[in-house]
Amino acid sequence: MISQNEDFDHAPWDVGGGSDDDKLHEECGIFGVLGVRDAAATAALGLHALQHRGQEAVGITSFDGQEFYSRKGIGHVAANFSNISAIAELPGTMAAGHVRYSTTGGAGLRNVQPLFADLASGGFAIAHNGNISNAMFLKRDLVRKGAIFQSTSDTEVIIHLVATSRYPTLLDRFVDALRLVEGAYSLICMTPLGMIACRDPLGIRPLVMGKMGDAIVFASETVALDVVGADFVREIEPGELVQVDLDGNLSSHHPFGKTDARPCIFEHVYFSRPDSLMGGRSVYQVRKEIGAQLAIESPADADLVIPVPDSGVPAALGYAQASGIPFELGIIRSHYVGRTFIQPSDGARNADVKRKHNANRALVAGKRIVLIDDSIVRGTTSMKIVQMMRDAGASEVHFRVASPPTEHSCFYGVDTPERSKLLAARMDVKAMAEFIHADSLAFVSIDGLYRAVGEAQRNSARPQYCDACFSGEYPTRLTDLADRENPDQLSFPVDKVA
Amino acid sequence: MISQNEDFDHAPWDVGGGSDDDKLHEECGIFGVLGVRDAAATAALGLHALQHRGQEAVGITSFDGQEFYSRKGIGHVAANFSNISAIAELPGTMAAGHVRYSTTGGAGLRNVQPLFADLASGGFAIAHNGNISNAMFLKRDLVRKGAIFQSTSDTEVIIHLVATSRYPTLLDRFVDALRLVEGAYSLICMTPLGMIACRDPLGIRPLVMGKMGDAIVFASETVALDVVGADFVREIEPGELVQVDLDGNLSSHHPFGKTDARPCIFEHVYFSRPDSLMGGRSVYQVRKEIGAQLAIESPADADLVIPVPDSGVPAALGYAQASGIPFELGIIRSHYVGRTFIQPSDGARNADVKRKHNANRALVAGKRIVLIDDSIVRGTTSMKIVQMMRDAGASEVHFRVASPPTEHSCFYGVDTPERSKLLAARMDVKAMAEFIHADSLAFVSIDGLYRAVGEAQRNSARPQYCDACFSGEYPTRLTDLADRENPDQLSFPVDKVA
Amino acid sequence: MISQNEDFDHAPWDVGGGSDDDKLHEECGIFGVLGVRDAAATAALGLHALQHRGQEAVGITSFDGQEFYSRKGIGHVAANFSNISAIAELPGTMAAGHVRYSTTGGAGLRNVQPLFADLASGGFAIAHNGNISNAMFLKRDLVRKGAIFQSTSDTEVIIHLVATSRYPTLLDRFVDALRLVEGAYSLICMTPLGMIACRDPLGIRPLVMGKMGDAIVFASETVALDVVGADFVREIEPGELVQVDLDGNLSSHHPFGKTDARPCIFEHVYFSRPDSLMGGRSVYQVRKEIGAQLAIESPADADLVIPVPDSGVPAALGYAQASGIPFELGIIRSHYVGRTFIQPSDGARNADVKRKHNANRALVAGKRIVLIDDSIVRGTTSMKIVQMMRDAGASEVHFRVASPPTEHSCFYGVDTPERSKLLAARMDVKAMAEFIHADSLAFVSIDGLYRAVGEAQRNSARPQYCDACFSGEYPTRLTDLADRENPDQLSFPVDKVA
Amino acid sequence: MISQNEDFDHAPWDVGGGSDDDKLHEECGIFGVLGVRDAAATAALGLHALQHRGQEAVGITSFDGQEFYSRKGIGHVAANFSNISAIAELPGTMAAGHVRYSTTGGAGLRNVQPLFADLASGGFAIAHNGNISNAMFLKRDLVRKGAIFQSTSDTEVIIHLVATSRYPTLLDRFVDALRLVEGAYSLICMTPLGMIACRDPLGIRPLVMGKMGDAIVFASETVALDVVGADFVREIEPGELVQVDLDGNLSSHHPFGKTDARPCIFEHVYFSRPDSLMGGRSVYQVRKEIGAQLAIESPADADLVIPVPDSGVPAALGYAQASGIPFELGIIRSHYVGRTFIQPSDGARNADVKRKHNANRALVAGKRIVLIDDSIVRGTTSMKIVQMMRDAGASEVHFRVASPPTEHSCFYGVDTPERSKLLAARMDVKAMAEFIHADSLAFVSIDGLYRAVGEAQRNSARPQYCDACFSGEYPTRLTDLADRENPDQLSFPVDKVA
Repeated sequence: MISQNEDFDHAPWDVGGGSDDDKLHEECGIFGVLGVRDAAATAALGLHALQHRGQEAVGITSFDGQEFYSRKGIGHVAANFSNISAIAELPGTMAAGHVRYSTTGGAGLRNVQPLFADLASGGFAIAHNGNISNAMFLKRDLVRKGAIFQSTSDTEVIIHLVATSRYPTLLDRFVDALRLVEGAYSLICMTPLGMIACRDPLGIRPLVMGKMGDAIVFASETVALDVVGADFVREIEPGELVQVDLDGNLSSHHPFGKTDARPCIFEHVYFSRPDSLMGGRSVYQVRKEIGAQLAIESPADADLVIPVPDSGVPAALGYAQASGIPFELGIIRSHYVGRTFIQPSDGARNADVKRKHNANRALVAGKRIVLIDDSIVRGTTSMKIVQMMRDAGASEVHFRVASPPTEHSCFYGVDTPERSKLLAARMDVKAMAEFIHADSLAFVSIDGLYRAVGEAQRNSARPQYCDACFSGEYPTRLTDLADRENPDQLSFPVDKVA
Repeated sequence: MISQNEDFDHAPWDVGGGSDDDKLHEECGIFGVLGVRDAAATAALGLHALQHRGQEAVGITSFDGQEFYSRKGIGHVAANFSNISAIAELPGTMAAGHVRYSTTGGAGLRNVQPLFADLASGGFAIAHNGNISNAMFLKRDLVRKGAIFQSTSDTEVIIHLVATSRYPTLLDRFVDALRLVEGAYSLICMTPLGMIACRDPLGIRPLVMGKMGDAIVFASETVALDVVGADFVREIEPGELVQVDLDGNLSSHHPFGKTDARPCIFEHVYFSRPDSLMGGRSVYQVRKEIGAQLAIESPADADLVIPVPDSGVPAALGYAQASGIPFELGIIRSHYVGRTFIQPSDGARNADVKRKHNANRALVAGKRIVLIDDSIVRGTTSMKIVQMMRDAGASEVHFRVASPPTEHSCFYGVDTPERSKLLAARMDVKAMAEFIHADSLAFVSIDGLYRAVGEAQRNSARPQYCDACFSGEYPTRLTDLADRENPDQLSFPVDKVA
Repeated sequence: MISQNEDFDHAPWDVGGGSDDDKLHEECGIFGVLGVRDAAATAALGLHALQHRGQEAVGITSFDGQEFYSRKGIGHVAANFSNISAIAELPGTMAAGHVRYSTTGGAGLRNVQPLFADLASGGFAIAHNGNISNAMFLKRDLVRKGAIFQSTSDTEVIIHLVATSRYPTLLDRFVDALRLVEGAYSLICMTPLGMIACRDPLGIRPLVMGKMGDAIVFASETVALDVVGADFVREIEPGELVQVDLDGNLSSHHPFGKTDARPCIFEHVYFSRPDSLMGGRSVYQVRKEIGAQLAIESPADADLVIPVPDSGVPAALGYAQASGIPFELGIIRSHYVGRTFIQPSDGARNADVKRKHNANRALVAGKRIVLIDDSIVRGTTSMKIVQMMRDAGASEVHFRVASPPTEHSCFYGVDTPERSKLLAARMDVKAMAEFIHADSLAFVSIDGLYRAVGEAQRNSARPQYCDACFSGEYPTRLTDLADRENPDQLSFPVDKVA
Repeated sequence: MISQNEDFDHAPWDVGGGSDDDKLHEECGIFGVLGVRDAAATAALGLHALQHRGQEAVGITSFDGQEFYSRKGIGHVAANFSNISAIAELPGTMAAGHVRYSTTGGAGLRNVQPLFADLASGGFAIAHNGNISNAMFLKRDLVRKGAIFQSTSDTEVIIHLVATSRYPTLLDRFVDALRLVEGAYSLICMTPLGMIACRDPLGIRPLVMGKMGDAIVFASETVALDVVGADFVREIEPGELVQVDLDGNLSSHHPFGKTDARPCIFEHVYFSRPDSLMGGRSVYQVRKEIGAQLAIESPADADLVIPVPDSGVPAALGYAQASGIPFELGIIRSHYVGRTFIQPSDGARNADVKRKHNANRALVAGKRIVLIDDSIVRGTTSMKIVQMMRDAGASEVHFRVASPPTEHSCFYGVDTPERSKLLAARMDVKAMAEFIHADSLAFVSIDGLYRAVGEAQRNSARPQYCDACFSGEYPTRLTDLADRENPDQLSFPVDKVA
């Protein structure tokens, strides 16, 4: 593979919140709008509202009826698209954009989406949230036929499949391409004729539609609709393809027939903003309900309920209200997270945790506390936070987790450490409690989690959600993974690009 | 005045939290350490913990026993001092630094502190939190005698007074200089002989001392001690000057005699981090107590208590606990504030508020809510937030403010709009309620505030705090202000530098 | 077409010599080396020696036996490849590079060569000097079959033709591709098996081979061999393809049969460095000989022979020696050309010319002078220089040009203004003399030029050189040009990418 | 001393001509203009014409009748002042600027001139060409009295002397300051009342005055007048101070009485542009005359006269014309000098010389050549160039130098290596010839040099020029040098700033 050293600015792109190493990371957020005067300005605002879904890079492509325009940058939306000249480079009434967490495929702007190609039918732009689990398999075949890839992104496979399809219309070629693709995808595409939004047959990754006057908006989460001032219309259905022409006329297609949905349950636990609606439910209320379930399943005899901010706050409120134990801010989170500092050689044990989270010492000293966090991934941060509470004088620390143990990797667009790094894959709950040095540790049960999202319980024959990170039950084939694990069964030699 | 267009990078320095236009802003935080191996690394960490006191620029000066080294930058500590090469430029076991909000004096690194000068006695570095209220008066006199100013910072006056003092020792020259100075100052200075920390006779701005093994630490707030791993020793007393030599020997001086303290009460309301101790009290507990006082003084018949995040959270918890009304997160704050975006011409009413604060619509719809904020400055943001709650379906909005009405400007190092822009200087509470469109509005009383900080009530004969922003009673002379208002009484002509 | 706003640094890339707006510009220089330890460092040095062939962008690709590495930049070789870290990014014993004048296809690094693609056979890099005159025709067909272009460079057509060829070996696929291509090309390609250098059947653009110990070097001009310390071996023949494997074994191929050469004669007039050998002759001596021909054909009764520096110097020496009139530096050229300055509104007539070329006033005052320049393109600079000589007191100005009138555009890789901008296409010599305000004006004859390169005269039946810019006789078909001029005869609709 | 790490762009500032390590370097050029609409644009153009006098940094200060504006940058004028926004930052009809070679005092913009200070009398800007030879002595005294220095530039001493002078008018204070100063200085100053230009009593460094309509222009050389379109009026006399008020009224002062001039003779040899007039003579003609003197004093039996370009060209023409040996370009100079490249580990002997100067091999092979250069400093480059000629086949190489042996350091504003590095201080001419491997070597005699500038011979009792670099006879006291060499005789202790 070629190492492209594009000379982009190494701007201080990780200044600001959230680069938390011990969390799972959603890899992308997407946003599209058609029918407003400054579509790119609206897209910038919408992507800013989705910034929590990807902080490493951002791109917007617009169309002014004649040409496509594209601008990409490393870092936050605000750092790249808040000035007037950036927006002025993106004229037109149709625009789509993408925020991205992953650095898969190496640094460089060429992997930043939307991807664009000049096809025989005209320009084609695509923004993708998810992960194609047979991308390497498909790429090998395409390259053998003469396709030249620009990026190392799995998304580019879709473009080449569209470009080489023999069907006459673009929509047919697009569906033809998707039939070959396996995995998770929510897509927003643009062509000279309009916008296409679609979701994979299982609806693993979210995608919603809104309206702003006559304009149509698509976004990963409803919070983006709120921020741009659009009204929520409905979710795109699993396996649905919605086409909007330049006059705003919509048509809905179900090229794969009707399928049973398996949306990602972790969106409710952590990825989505609490002020979004997901699957018809308030994410905030679901998280409070998970906290309430935890309080019922795993009570603690304590003086204070303390969230690990900010993601643990709603569950902690739910736990506090259900248990009657007062909710207090025992950990203060800095607004200025930024990069890791040089650790001074003297003093400052765990300075790197403390500069993000500091104990509210006067509050916790001498108290028995219940700490609430949304999940435990590697466990290293949890261990340090428990220690910080003890150093601040807490007499007992009971740790409660608002999700079941995270035992498996995700192959559908979430950045997970390899399985051997997951604490829950390495030890049982008792050992985990010892590892993080908590007086007690409990996770919400899988059925408790399903109850919080409104189900009676998990249907183990046909689970209502994708919960593979907890259960290991993956709802699709994982071709590329199988090829890696059984290389001798490959139809083609493994090329080094893979 | 010369306009220095130094070619610094206009990096995205306001990416990240907190550039909230409708708040008062503390202008500075200072930090010093003597006796650790990598003093600059410790200073960077300490300044990061004080970032909320000033986000626009940062500087650190170190001393390695032979030479002074200085590095300054525009923007956050993390953006300027987190990489190893930045710290490597600052060798030595003594270092002091400064974070700064104000752009007074124009852009450019020359106003970024610590300021440094090569005096006849050797190098002299100074970091200042506060404001000298007769700086222009003193500067005019110094310039007439041949002094050449490098910056437009009031702090530089102190250096020239030290440089031109006729006393034999540096300490005498320093005290000689401070005797001429009026206003608010907490200072950390470095000389080839060690560090000097001092606080003005009224102790208007905070300064604390800590210990980390044998090393001595000074900082604006105790949170910086926590983050670097130092133990809190005590506050520097009003009018006290603490000298530490390079071997760590301390001596305390009170060159101005004993004075009655008048520390800034707004530190408790908003400026300080909730996890700091200030005047022996937990800032978090004081804020909760203010909320409790508010609940007693100004109850509301409502379903939910909702903080304006993040500064309103402790008072809201106090109000909720005292009133029994549930505390809920009805407003979700984005972690990715950054710069102002281009407002799209269609849609998106008040997009600029929404991209920071979004209504948790599912929670507040149909509810009577109590909104808690720490203060009202111009009132523009409050108005938009009330509207956002109504748009989200709140049936009643009762606004409660955790400080008395802010009616007066601060001349002691806090960035306040001119008086005519302060909502409370323009109208009474009833009119303010109408202006922000709240169903009811109430501020905590001045005595309620004093009770929250542990006093029985405000001693109007000799107030225990500086509360000039509420009361208009300034505890010092304001020479420069008087000169500006009565220019004909000036001893010197007003020069254009002023 | 998409407008790619890649965020490269707009560094002061045109600082330094040569961005002369009133000259023809060679569009590219290429260099390759195989068999040295730091191939990229050698390539950087070689490209620096070819910098006069293209100043706007530069790229180098290397191969270390396993992977290809690429680095591209806007501006000069020295600005992009002189630091050790740049070279360190390009390991390996084989490297090829490219300097580029043209901004055809829009700004952005994606058009900077070498272009690279991962083909089924492995990596493939290509550096091209010349222009493919049926590129649009071929591209339309490729896109219809599903090819996705990364750049707007004509060179990319070759890569796609190679990728989609059905021949089994890469060499066959490469020749298969070249058979479809018309126009001018000197190419250096790299594959995992070695390097391929080739020249179009007419040998329009130059390409030479050298040796440095066991290492093989290819370059546009011999000066690059001198600078890297290689010995000149021979020119690549027109229509020849030289293959070198990783062990340094050479093989020569003539896939198009033997053809009559038509090398570009303008290389001798202006493009090449005077210290290069071209077609077996010293460029410096040829230019002196052109000056001597001029002195014979168009003598002048004058006191001084003055070159327009630097390109007019050799011809002026030849003219002076042949005529016996002293050679003097009557115009001093600044070494610091850089960008155009803001023209002050007062004073400074023609400041933009003067900051490059200033009259040596004390020398020319009162003198009759012969000015020698290599060519006249638009005539605007010539006019200003004549005026500058008159302003400096020259009593007569006789202008002599070391090439025939430039009447036609070049379609073989030289940046020419459209024909209507060429002075010689708009008026006869007499009118040109008036336009530039010279007392007399003469161009060398076409036969005089052929004599200077060693021919008896131009063979009008079968010209020995490509002299289309003077004669209008293009030695190849110009398919794309014909398509543009007769769009109704196209086999495919003209797509907007073209 | 403090190490100020100001965050300026490390732009590729040495791209472009002239950073020749084996030459003496003029340290500065200055330019001022009063009475034109866009004074800064004119100053930028004028400084560009003086770029050869200093390539490392540039600054311009302007005055619009109310305020002073300043902009400084690292690198070339074109890189810093060619865009419209840079000029727009510098409004007003009066401007002065400075180009600078030296990095004395460390990197950073604070040493870039013009220096500026707000004095009691108003703003004061100063641009200086030269060197103050008692600057350290004066600085120690000023610091003891309370002065705080902003830079490590010797020029700042003048500002502090003006600021602390007790005389009533600025002009008196300025003269009072200059009386204390020893060494070489040409100065352009700006105050709110107008511009002051002056030259030290010996007139060591040049300064000329021109007129452009009603506007007055001052510049180091006449070439800057040519380029901005001004007419040359006269040189500022040694010891003269010219004052121009804002209405353009001039007054001339000779505060030091009449003095015998000792202008720098090396300006004629190398520093000045050949198209400048210096001391009433054409620099080009003087250099040709030096070449002619050399031909008379040191003839050579040779086939070709070859200059080391570009500085050796005029002397080579003079040598050729006097000797009758043909002048030819046997060395081709690259226009693209830029930074030093990484030397490849294979091949390329002396690549660093070759990328600047390449042999015109076809010309010199088999020939006996006379090489002409302006001077020999360290001798390392001369040695490599002789070798390059031999490698190209020259049968004999006779080296002729257009100045006497450079045996002594300059303390008047020219960057010279320490004496022990000067080849002529280390060995006699015969040994030098062997060192550079020339068949013969000769320098012009000191009287030959004086003849070339129009004198009958050097007046050894009272030399007409400063020729200390050849003779060791310094025309002023060198107080700081004496203090360094005899530290026990100092009146004050040597502080570390020195």
